[in-house]
Amino acid sequence: MAPGTPKLVVPIDLKKKPWEQKVPLHNRWHPHIPAVTEVTVGDFFRVEMVDWTGGVIQDNDSAMDVKSINLSTVHYLSGPIRVVDTDGIPAKPGDLLAVEICNLGPLPGDEWGYTATFDRENGGGFLTDHFPCATKAIWYFEGIYTYSPQIPGVRFPGLTHPGIIGTAPSMELLNVWNERERELEKNGLQSLKLCDVLHTRPLANLPTAEGCHLGLVKADTSEWANIASEAARTIPGRENGGNCDIKNLSKGSKIYLPVFVEGANFSTGDMHFSQGDGEVSFCGAIEMSGFLELKCDIIRNGMREYLTPMGPTPLHVNPIFEIGPVEPRFSEWLVFEGISVDESGKQHYLDATVAYKRAVLNAIDYLSRFGYSKEQIYLLLSCCPCEGRISGIVDSPNACATLAIPTAIFDQDIRPKSSKVPVGPRVVKKPDVLKCTYDGNLPVTKNPGGAT
Amino acid sequence: MAPGTPKLVVPIDLKKKPWEQKVPLHNRWHPHIPAVTEVTVGDFFRVEMVDWTGGVIQDNDSAMDVKSINLSTVHYLSGPIRVVDTDGIPAKPGDLLAVEICNLGPLPGDEWGYTATFDRENGGGFLTDHFPCATKAIWYFEGIYTYSPQIPGVRFPGLTHPGIIGTAPSMELLNVWNERERELEKNGLQSLKLCDVLHTRPLANLPTAEGCHLGLVKADTSEWANIASEAARTIPGRENGGNCDIKNLSKGSKIYLPVFVEGANFSTGDMHFSQGDGEVSFCGAIEMSGFLELKCDIIRNGMREYLTPMGPTPLHVNPIFEIGPVEPRFSEWLVFEGISVDESGKQHYLDATVAYKRAVLNAIDYLSRFGYSKEQIYLLLSCCPCEGRISGIVDSPNACATLAIPTAIFDQDIRPKSSKVPVGPRVVKKPDVLKCTYDGNLPVTKNPGGAT
Amino acid sequence: MAPGTPKLVVPIDLKKKPWEQKVPLHNRWHPHIPAVTEVTVGDFFRVEMVDWTGGVIQDNDSAMDVKSINLSTVHYLSGPIRVVDTDGIPAKPGDLLAVEICNLGPLPGDEWGYTATFDRENGGGFLTDHFPCATKAIWYFEGIYTYSPQIPGVRFPGLTHPGIIGTAPSMELLNVWNERERELEKNGLQSLKLCDVLHTRPLANLPTAEGCHLGLVKADTSEWANIASEAARTIPGRENGGNCDIKNLSKGSKIYLPVFVEGANFSTGDMHFSQGDGEVSFCGAIEMSGFLELKCDIIRNGMREYLTPMGPTPLHVNPIFEIGPVEPRFSEWLVFEGISVDESGKQHYLDATVAYKRAVLNAIDYLSRFGYSKEQIYLLLSCCPCEGRISGIVDSPNACATLAIPTAIFDQDIRPKSSKVPVGPRVVKKPDVLKCTYDGNLPVTKNPGGAT
Amino acid sequence: MAPGTPKLVVPIDLKKKPWEQKVPLHNRWHPHIPAVTEVTVGDFFRVEMVDWTGGVIQDNDSAMDVKSINLSTVHYLSGPIRVVDTDGIPAKPGDLLAVEICNLGPLPGDEWGYTATFDRENGGGFLTDHFPCATKAIWYFEGIYTYSPQIPGVRFPGLTHPGIIGTAPSMELLNVWNERERELEKNGLQSLKLCDVLHTRPLANLPTAEGCHLGLVKADTSEWANIASEAARTIPGRENGGNCDIKNLSKGSKIYLPVFVEGANFSTGDMHFSQGDGEVSFCGAIEMSGFLELKCDIIRNGMREYLTPMGPTPLHVNPIFEIGPVEPRFSEWLVFEGISVDESGKQHYLDATVAYKRAVLNAIDYLSRFGYSKEQIYLLLSCCPCEGRISGIVDSPNACATLAIPTAIFDQDIRPKSSKVPVGPRVVKKPDVLKCTYDGNLPVTKNPGGAT
Repeated sequence: MAPGTPKLVVPIDLKKKPWEQKVPLHNRWHPHIPAVTEVTVGDFFRVEMVDWTGGVIQDNDSAMDVKSINLSTVHYLSGPIRVVDTDGIPAKPGDLLAVEICNLGPLPGDEWGYTATFDRENGGGFLTDHFPCATKAIWYFEGIYTYSPQIPGVRFPGLTHPGIIGTAPSMELLNVWNERERELEKNGLQSLKLCDVLHTRPLANLPTAEGCHLGLVKADTSEWANIASEAARTIPGRENGGNCDIKNLSKGSKIYLPVFVEGANFSTGDMHFSQGDGEVSFCGAIEMSGFLELKCDIIRNGMREYLTPMGPTPLHVNPIFEIGPVEPRFSEWLVFEGISVDESGKQHYLDATVAYKRAVLNAIDYLSRFGYSKEQIYLLLSCCPCEGRISGIVDSPNACATLAIPTAIFDQDIRPKSSKVPVGPRVVKKPDVLKCTYDGNLPVTKNPGGAT
Repeated sequence: MAPGTPKLVVPIDLKKKPWEQKVPLHNRWHPHIPAVTEVTVGDFFRVEMVDWTGGVIQDNDSAMDVKSINLSTVHYLSGPIRVVDTDGIPAKPGDLLAVEICNLGPLPGDEWGYTATFDRENGGGFLTDHFPCATKAIWYFEGIYTYSPQIPGVRFPGLTHPGIIGTAPSMELLNVWNERERELEKNGLQSLKLCDVLHTRPLANLPTAEGCHLGLVKADTSEWANIASEAARTIPGRENGGNCDIKNLSKGSKIYLPVFVEGANFSTGDMHFSQGDGEVSFCGAIEMSGFLELKCDIIRNGMREYLTPMGPTPLHVNPIFEIGPVEPRFSEWLVFEGISVDESGKQHYLDATVAYKRAVLNAIDYLSRFGYSKEQIYLLLSCCPCEGRISGIVDSPNACATLAIPTAIFDQDIRPKSSKVPVGPRVVKKPDVLKCTYDGNLPVTKNPGGAT
Repeated sequence: MAPGTPKLVVPIDLKKKPWEQKVPLHNRWHPHIPAVTEVTVGDFFRVEMVDWTGGVIQDNDSAMDVKSINLSTVHYLSGPIRVVDTDGIPAKPGDLLAVEICNLGPLPGDEWGYTATFDRENGGGFLTDHFPCATKAIWYFEGIYTYSPQIPGVRFPGLTHPGIIGTAPSMELLNVWNERERELEKNGLQSLKLCDVLHTRPLANLPTAEGCHLGLVKADTSEWANIASEAARTIPGRENGGNCDIKNLSKGSKIYLPVFVEGANFSTGDMHFSQGDGEVSFCGAIEMSGFLELKCDIIRNGMREYLTPMGPTPLHVNPIFEIGPVEPRFSEWLVFEGISVDESGKQHYLDATVAYKRAVLNAIDYLSRFGYSKEQIYLLLSCCPCEGRISGIVDSPNACATLAIPTAIFDQDIRPKSSKVPVGPRVVKKPDVLKCTYDGNLPVTKNPGGAT
Repeated sequence: MAPGTPKLVVPIDLKKKPWEQKVPLHNRWHPHIPAVTEVTVGDFFRVEMVDWTGGVIQDNDSAMDVKSINLSTVHYLSGPIRVVDTDGIPAKPGDLLAVEICNLGPLPGDEWGYTATFDRENGGGFLTDHFPCATKAIWYFEGIYTYSPQIPGVRFPGLTHPGIIGTAPSMELLNVWNERERELEKNGLQSLKLCDVLHTRPLANLPTAEGCHLGLVKADTSEWANIASEAARTIPGRENGGNCDIKNLSKGSKIYLPVFVEGANFSTGDMHFSQGDGEVSFCGAIEMSGFLELKCDIIRNGMREYLTPMGPTPLHVNPIFEIGPVEPRFSEWLVFEGISVDESGKQHYLDATVAYKRAVLNAIDYLSRFGYSKEQIYLLLSCCPCEGRISGIVDSPNACATLAIPTAIFDQDIRPKSSKVPVGPRVVKKPDVLKCTYDGNLPVTKNPGGAT
């Protein structure tokens, strides 16, 4: 082996189920999930991972797997990985763990992914009130490129990245999480008005033993039951990093994670071949299995040195990231804007979420005029390398959010054209995304101004 | 004159007050403000403009002008400019007006700008609860570069752009604006919970005759009084474009504006030498006088062709933008993250505004460790070419927003460093920003976790 | 005036001839041409300049001015500019002069330029054996963009730069130049075989009093006659910088020039709105009048510190350059290759010039298939932002040179297409370049393999 | 297998010698070398390859393998690969073969490479007269990054590409090659004066049976002997593509190759983890084994449609290339210049090779002041992503060539600094490159102007 060959510390066998892997996976955050391996500062090592659902969503011609998914099992993570320095001394609470992503990609033999929207009754998504049905598109990879039989006329290079990378929380931090999310789940519908605009439910995903996998923790023990009852779900990003879904964390990036437990015990998963800012469809990137090749460093006392708590405890911090130097170049972008007025015409106050929702809706309607269904564009904007920006956040009462789309991903010119210039036929693209019926009876948000 | 020399249609004489200019300026949106000039599709023309305050904030050594400013007079706009096609037929409601920015810059002889935060009682800003004082930094330009005596150790090339470009609203659209903003002003504090987090007041700026300038509308007439009583303030971006503050609208960009009145009657102003996404300090870009060199095209029926109304009327649309090919290259970025948990530790639901507030606070605290005051960094992040992203908007309950800062704007290495590597002294930068006292008695938001 | 307003040290009045300017110009390199102005380290100052021919080539509909030009008068330079430090001590021989280009552009009111090929008997060019006629294309500027009525279907942003920036030579260095170039002129045709492939003559341009302008040196004096008899022509780049024609020296670039005489006495001129690597047509960039806004620094003893002489004397050095951060982005390039086999099929030995000639010829033939004349493409490749690379220089016997062309400058897709994909009509572009007859009788290089 | 998993058509077993591989390799160009596999238009397939020397140069602590190498065996190529369309009809002479590089990299388990200079008596290099010794540096890969124990303080992401990709020549084209190269070898020293400046010998590498490998051609047959006696060496790039060494042909690039024989029969090899323009040390990139993942298309009659012969026959063409959208971003470059005056001070005529030699020598001397040996920099400039440009090729008598080096590859600031700014210690880097003695007696080119 050449010195540059990474040491494989978490292997994945795709013929096995997530819970059958040699090095067991986990899908919760908890300080008592034991590390599955140890690496030393300077080691160059490889971590493999299953897709976030652990193979539930498949490369077939139906979206029924999306509709019926049990979301209590996501996300399957590889780790925890314990980190020690060259003297064998582990990372300690208060340190920063620097993780460099030297390489990443899909697992050989498994070069495909999917983008989907969940049914409104089971998972939802950013625009679930407009698009309540479960839908799915399959993406095949050709090296750096991807294309989807369900969204023809589009091909682009992936800005591949892990959706999740995070350290284990301490018990103290875990308690902070559980308390604040329980409070939200209990009172949020009454107290938070954004809930009128965003229709995904539940508001938070609280600990549950259902679907729980805890790695090396022995099942059928009281320890397992205790951990399962309080371990945090992996869906939101939090103080430990976790599901940040920062699409630019690709090759060459560095992630500075706060350390809350001895050894840092970081885990990773949820590989994305590509994602748009916001990951709006929720099952939203091009989700895949994959691998990371990593190097770690420990910055002793780095939390105090570099992070300022922002909140009631010293644990209320966030990671820092450095973006790598290698990514696809796009030179031309078409930009859609939204302001914080919702679809009913109601004025909100500097609300970037409402503004971004409108920017995405604007983009969907625009692009659907080039021969696409709205569902195709919704999935596309969730997974292509589009940029979501908070452009203005101070011009009361309107936040201004923008969504910038690289024009080169389309095989036609999608820019507006003067009526004096002859425009080619806008080819109707077929087939469409894979789609299920919506069997619930929540109302769809109408767009009274739109023709369709 | 060479054919490439632009025709000057709105000149500015900097020795005169905004209301003394030969071609009069205006600071409200209203359909009855007459066009001051007419251009034909294909013309290459130049529009000059004063800074948004019309010279109130000056290049001196005090922030008192910021503290005491009367904000009823902003923003001074150049225009309206009527657009006709080569047959002399004006743009019509339902068309799209395409405006290409071929060139722009500061006015010769006036190569300086300012960034400021308003007093909490008079204007505020995104973080006014943390930073209630009026502050100011002056920026001098050296060609593409700028530097500030008040924020030493920083120099960067500007991504210069107009903060405001918009078409005149129709009466129908104006009424929509006034109704929804009046409703917000009246009931927003009760109904919108984001107001607990964002402390700038008032919630909206309703029409007022105070400080009103209406261009060619004769003063002291009933017409003037009527228009002034209902003309919309220019502070928020709206359906007509307006104060979008999209920092990438620089040389080579194209803006597709909906046309609501005959001739389109577009206006522009609020030139920014540079701005960060969000323009967080509110007086927030490097504000300056300046010029645009423009070309227009009319896309007949382009609103129906390319824009889908999103809201209760066909007027609820937003402009589209194309980003130009020329801008400063930065290859390395340090990224700060925020999630939708506020400074008190309260959990919000997918709130990108709260998440972005925390990302900005995180960045301020981090960078202040390199020898800066927090006020210096707050102003810097408002005006340097940093990128604010909505990274994740679906991972309930946390929105994840990020703020990416190009490391090359600093004269020191601002990345976290392993404790094993010797770190140079972190030079304390002096002097500080120009600063006034805060004389009000609203409480400052404390950061219980922070040492300072 | 704001502190950022540059001090105008060399003004140009375009209504006057080059020799009538208030601050006189010069068109030769000689240590005894006195400085016309002095600047101090840290000053921000502006230098204006005429186009390289001083207005001989005009915006009209004939190439006769190109054909009949007297090249003994080129290039008109602005300067020399003496540089002192903040203590008033001038730059000294052995120092490095650092010149930062903070801004640049065309002169207001003169926003146009030209690209031309000289007649084979009067100036020639890289491909003069293929294209012996004088031709001309006029370019008009629209802010950052340019277009030519003679080369329709093309529009691009300029990467504007000065073709010439250099310090005054010492007498010793001037003697080195004159000796080696005299030797080339005398014996080169016999001893240098590249002369068989490149047909521009004379081989070198030796000092001549004809057309000479020497700035502040009083005409009709023996001093003038002495200087004129030995002052170096400005056509080639040399140890002092000079006519380097490095197309990326745009906004934000820094140039480190060796200092050979007290005060450095640097001059500049030959502004290019845009140029392709190689500037192959010789009159070859988009030539224009223009201005530079500059800052200087002196690096004491920098020649010894940073430059290693490469040749028989300590004066045999070359400048160093830093490329600025602002330039047009292009993401897609079509690349043409040439190897060191000439048009007759003769094998040369690692000759990058022969290889580049073939790469340019390949590109001309290819692009002429998209509705252009070969003369249109020859001029275009000389002035558009194409990149000429030495890709391989060691694979005996073939050097491999490449010419990369940004595809976005064309309004049609110029990439090769599979015959299975329907290809649109290749529009024949009219009109053509302005063109004169070739009245000489030197043979044209035939391309036996080409159909035309 | 997912549809995106490439079909492996040429496997490499690194434990075997090049001539023991299951699918046999070849190291000559000849029309009668049979295809080893067939692919269909649209197939996504993988080709593996050994390093160009087939394992002769090894990861050890001596450069003796470099010094004693038998260069008659290079380059080992994978192929020929026959290409047919979806109807089974092969590519035909006159077609263009479009090859898209979807992915590439080192072979798993073999993540290292080397850069070397050959001994002046055995291979030489661009600067062999200055650096006559065999030297070697080993590079280890960490994902996208590489570093060398022999050149400390440098780490950079690779712009990985195949050095060689080409189609099989027809007999007619092969004869053209052999004739012109034989003529050069015979008479070149007398007739070509560039030979005085470039000291690598022989001038050309003519066909030889020594070291010859011919793939599926049965050894010890008269057919083998016939082919071996006339098959072209792979060292120079030629009309069929071949050893072009274009460093930007990385992921996402497309290569349009002329087809000279039925099936196109293209071969590839000589993988480079990274290379600088010019590949100046000759063994010059970071040479490695590797793989390509490819897709092919056939453009029928594409040679007539898109290529113009430039020379005496219709076969005198060159390939066309499209550069891919993914490559490392560098924002800051330090640029060294050379003009066509050689080290003895002799003036050459528009000679880009001489100019580039001087630019490289200037860069070596400059960078060696930052604690490096000249041999370290010579190897570094040969393999790091530096850009070699032909900046000016018309300003008689001086060609101006430039070498631009991305500053970010160094761990220190390598830009010139004003003497007023304190400069850190320039750390002497140890150890040095691996180095052999030069035992010949050809004179070294002295640099009389240099101190060392």
